Amino acid sequence: MDNYEELLTKLLEKLAPTDQIQPTKLTDNQQIPVGISNRHIHLSQQEVDKLFGQGYQLTKLKDLSQPGQYACKETVMICGPKGAIEKVRILGPVRKQTQVEILQSDSFKLGVKAPLRLSGDLAGSGNITLIGPKGSAEISEGVVVAKRHIHMLPAEAVRFGVHDGQAVTIEFSGERGGSLSNVIIRAVENSGLECHIDTEEANALGITPNTKIVIKK
Amino acid sequence: MDNYEELLTKLLEKLAPTDQIQPTKLTDNQQIPVGISNRHIHLSQQEVDKLFGQGYQLTKLKDLSQPGQYACKETVMICGPKGAIEKVRILGPVRKQTQVEILQSDSFKLGVKAPLRLSGDLAGSGNITLIGPKGSAEISEGVVVAKRHIHMLPAEAVRFGVHDGQAVTIEFSGERGGSLSNVIIRAVENSGLECHIDTEEANALGITPNTKIVIKK
Repeated sequence: MDNYEELLTKLLEKLAPTDQIQPTKLTDNQQIPVGISNRHIHLSQQEVDKLFGQGYQLTKLKDLSQPGQYACKETVMICGPKGAIEKVRILGPVRKQTQVEILQSDSFKLGVKAPLRLSGDLAGSGNITLIGPKGSAEISEGVVVAKRHIHMLPAEAVRFGVHDGQAVTIEFSGERGGSLSNVIIRAVENSGLECHIDTEEANALGITPNTKIVIKK
Repeated sequence: MDNYEELLTKLLEKLAPTDQIQPTKLTDNQQIPVGISNRHIHLSQQEVDKLFGQGYQLTKLKDLSQPGQYACKETVMICGPKGAIEKVRILGPVRKQTQVEILQSDSFKLGVKAPLRLSGDLAGSGNITLIGPKGSAEISEGVVVAKRHIHMLPAEAVRFGVHDGQAVTIEFSGERGGSLSNVIIRAVENSGLECHIDTEEANALGITPNTKIVIKK
């Protein structure tokens, strides 16, 4: 009986994952889907009221990858001293403060300031005028270029060996390959694993919605 | 007198560049200016005739960094099945074949094919319609997204330790830093030292006209 147990133990040891197998599995697990954002707006109810009428409710068009987030049917025009851009998509639900996320090239076209910021970090950011079907709204701050970031659960951060707030580098191969530094880890509960970059970053590096991101650190 | 000579030799040795000083000088020499291109067009005389009238001569507005190249006063509209872009700058002088260099995002907006190509490599590239003040011209090929490249003299290539046609990587620091791979060395006579990227690449990496490029290889 002792012999059987010894044999069983040895067999189990042989069958157990070895150090040589683990890295491969880990690599597969470490691919992160990418979400490519064009310019868009998050509105507060105060600005929804001004642009679409008192008590107006935004209409969900399509769910986004982050739980509870969605693209709305409604769009607005955004205007700066040098130009305007029509049909900028609104993302819901409404937020405490209106946030206008534009491309770096839009900031030149519109003639507005748009510092590179993480979502919600709006103090001292740019001002702009929004035009809706029922009125306009001038916001004194809230215009930013989104700082690239990766959404993940705290448990996923442990798996990737990173922590909330950490700046990492991501790498890409291909004809227009390269790397992007200062990609901020946003590890909070109720997150969908996704790396968020804007269309200029995607185009510059040849990144498409099918590209898988790998953290290089 | 021998003593003076010996002393002089020793003094000169002390004053001569040491191994510790040289790398700094070399680094300064290895900084490359950047030229950031927006969408633009090189026209053949055949298309100039169609768009601006028979025998029309383009008007120089401003010299560019590459010897003999200049921005013209004239612009045209470019039209694809999905959209049009007005006021696209013409660069002179006229070339053998018309070449339309657009951004990746323009190709989506216009609905046209625009493969990533070096200047002049136009076989099988995209088609588009050009609209000028005196007529329109449909080109069956010539629409590309410019492949990033570095112009330099053959002597400069020797100094940088690279050769014509080589693909190198360039690196950037800063808030939106990173690297761009597959930057092609174009080492021919009568070149001005300059790294050419487009506005999407510049915006994605936080590159401005004052940024100096360093080849990482």
